[in-house]
Amino acid sequence: MKIGIVGVGHTKFGNLTEDIGELMFKACTEALKDANTTIDKIDVIYIANFSSSFVNQCHLPALLAARLGINKEIIRVESACASGGIALKEAAFAILSGIRKTALVVGVEKMSSTPIEKTTYILASAAGPIEIQHGATFPSLYGLIARAHFNKYQTSERHLAEISVKNHLNATLNPLAHFHKEISVEDVLDSRAIASPLKLLDCSPISDGGAAVVLCNEEIASHVEDVVYIIGIGHDVESIYLMDRKDLTVMPAVINAAQKAYQMCNLTPENIDVAEVHDCFTIAELIEMEDLGFCDKGKAGEMINLGETKIGGRIPINTSGGLKAKGHPIGATGISQVIEIVKQLQGKAGKRQVKDAKVGLCCNIGGSGSTAVVSILSKLHKK
Amino acid sequence: MKIGIVGVGHTKFGNLTEDIGELMFKACTEALKDANTTIDKIDVIYIANFSSSFVNQCHLPALLAARLGINKEIIRVESACASGGIALKEAAFAILSGIRKTALVVGVEKMSSTPIEKTTYILASAAGPIEIQHGATFPSLYGLIARAHFNKYQTSERHLAEISVKNHLNATLNPLAHFHKEISVEDVLDSRAIASPLKLLDCSPISDGGAAVVLCNEEIASHVEDVVYIIGIGHDVESIYLMDRKDLTVMPAVINAAQKAYQMCNLTPENIDVAEVHDCFTIAELIEMEDLGFCDKGKAGEMINLGETKIGGRIPINTSGGLKAKGHPIGATGISQVIEIVKQLQGKAGKRQVKDAKVGLCCNIGGSGSTAVVSILSKLHKK
Repeated sequence: MKIGIVGVGHTKFGNLTEDIGELMFKACTEALKDANTTIDKIDVIYIANFSSSFVNQCHLPALLAARLGINKEIIRVESACASGGIALKEAAFAILSGIRKTALVVGVEKMSSTPIEKTTYILASAAGPIEIQHGATFPSLYGLIARAHFNKYQTSERHLAEISVKNHLNATLNPLAHFHKEISVEDVLDSRAIASPLKLLDCSPISDGGAAVVLCNEEIASHVEDVVYIIGIGHDVESIYLMDRKDLTVMPAVINAAQKAYQMCNLTPENIDVAEVHDCFTIAELIEMEDLGFCDKGKAGEMINLGETKIGGRIPINTSGGLKAKGHPIGATGISQVIEIVKQLQGKAGKRQVKDAKVGLCCNIGGSGSTAVVSILSKLHKK
Repeated sequence: MKIGIVGVGHTKFGNLTEDIGELMFKACTEALKDANTTIDKIDVIYIANFSSSFVNQCHLPALLAARLGINKEIIRVESACASGGIALKEAAFAILSGIRKTALVVGVEKMSSTPIEKTTYILASAAGPIEIQHGATFPSLYGLIARAHFNKYQTSERHLAEISVKNHLNATLNPLAHFHKEISVEDVLDSRAIASPLKLLDCSPISDGGAAVVLCNEEIASHVEDVVYIIGIGHDVESIYLMDRKDLTVMPAVINAAQKAYQMCNLTPENIDVAEVHDCFTIAELIEMEDLGFCDKGKAGEMINLGETKIGGRIPINTSGGLKAKGHPIGATGISQVIEIVKQLQGKAGKRQVKDAKVGLCCNIGGSGSTAVVSILSKLHKK
């Protein structure tokens, strides 16, 4: 497959004053401008948004139509924190089918205006009812995953801390990131426990933000300077319950989604030069490193020890700062990952540029990894 | 286009004991059984659900995967009360594209366990923030639409009451309907005012329910007895705000969606034998009768006076009982409409059967009509 990404728009991530309509509008208009096109040239719009409960706003398609002053086919999709990835895939498939030539995909979440107790309650809606009834929260579910990996593979809190330190350092190089604060391994290890072994600085923050991309078919893309192509995309969903997982150290949906994506473009993990993976908690980045095939199962700790995921390493991961430090406005995250890879492949990532990046990968997951979308991007050569 | 509908599943609508996972599961398993197929033969699943706020449950794709014991590509879509129609369209287009051969589409909403004050708050999330800030609710927005139509076209509260009476009568013939209570025009006119001129019996109720259909491509469908085809489907979204509408008596999104659907199958309103339209409020059915082209603009009152939308009339509308009396579990509604038309075209609608129905139409709208999906179904002849 070859779906062109010809424009990107990305608001600042953080505690913002803009409302949800404005965040969508800003990301969309910036992406359209970057694509040197106008909204009337767009065949369909997909919106990714996790929960209408934060600001009590459903029906975002009609809200965006109002904001843009248009009428058009607009669809909202949701699959917890993987909503952005799902929207990208639905739009890419609509173009691949030949039914659409162009699509605008926008992800958005407005979280910071919601009281924290309500936010905790809303976030739980991405877990299964039995888990929630038993008092589980996402930190506690990911805490179980971390403990299982520690026990089976001798990984440690220090490995996780290194992930947080790296992502915070990368974020200092990203003007749009939520946090611009360098931290040390000791800062992470000394931060207060949230759900053992996870500590405050193992967890991604509550952020507002919007991100949008303009997609088009191969024919249109072939005329565009600096186009980046989606060359593979895979999606898989399995049980919402961690208790249904045979081995807590594995995310089968990530393995399946990655396999589909690699097969689509006939590439292997060895071909990936740079990746954005879903570090809602540091342990998630570590598990995904393995399940995406960047190292053997159980060897992510060694890869971290060797500094292979730092900028300048073998496969730099989360050069944007990741969810941990760039921020995690849930619906926007999957699209934001894609934008970072586009910039890396275009050589426009500024101070965080990975040298000679030719192929990049995004891994966007939902819940405790029960939904996964993996996309592979490449600049390819111009026709 | 020809997309086969080869199986349907429909729970009772009403105040049910089942939770949201169980409602999805029941509708899906019944539809698969009706299609004489199994879940492993399904390429993709689309879930329609309006608001995660009712039971604080997002991530329905992973919840359904848990309930069905599967891993698969599953996507939730939302566009207020038109969520079911949108899911149907996305699934139909995925098959039309050739990328998918089969799809399961399930709509669901669990509303009755939510306190009514919270329900009122959640329903407002489908309107625009400016409308909500000024105290508008959907009854009040549709009240404005009704008053505008009364003023311009001499329609009356009695015309609206006739719609409610017809739909309640039809529902007595539908075992799965929420209400089985015949009412009179006087009952409607005497019911308490909600938002003048709309009264309690002009409004659809709060219901729980699930509905599912199995779709497949033309090749597979051609081998299936009693298959019904989707031969046209149109979707349009315009501004969420009623204040942006030049004429309150018209729903431009309905007109646009209908035009797309009619063009796809080269049919006109004259070809429609039976229709399910979105009567969230009685005035919505009246406006849609006109905007779908069943009569000239402003003439719906005359059509009602002639009894043309009753079973036995020129175009029977809402033979199922409609949203008013069958019930309106929001995410399920768009799929439930399609199931009624399938049954009518198969000659399996029991006591509410429309004689010789060959072509049927569904109109599913969201908000105050800013999102619309119109689908046209026909049995056609077997190959």
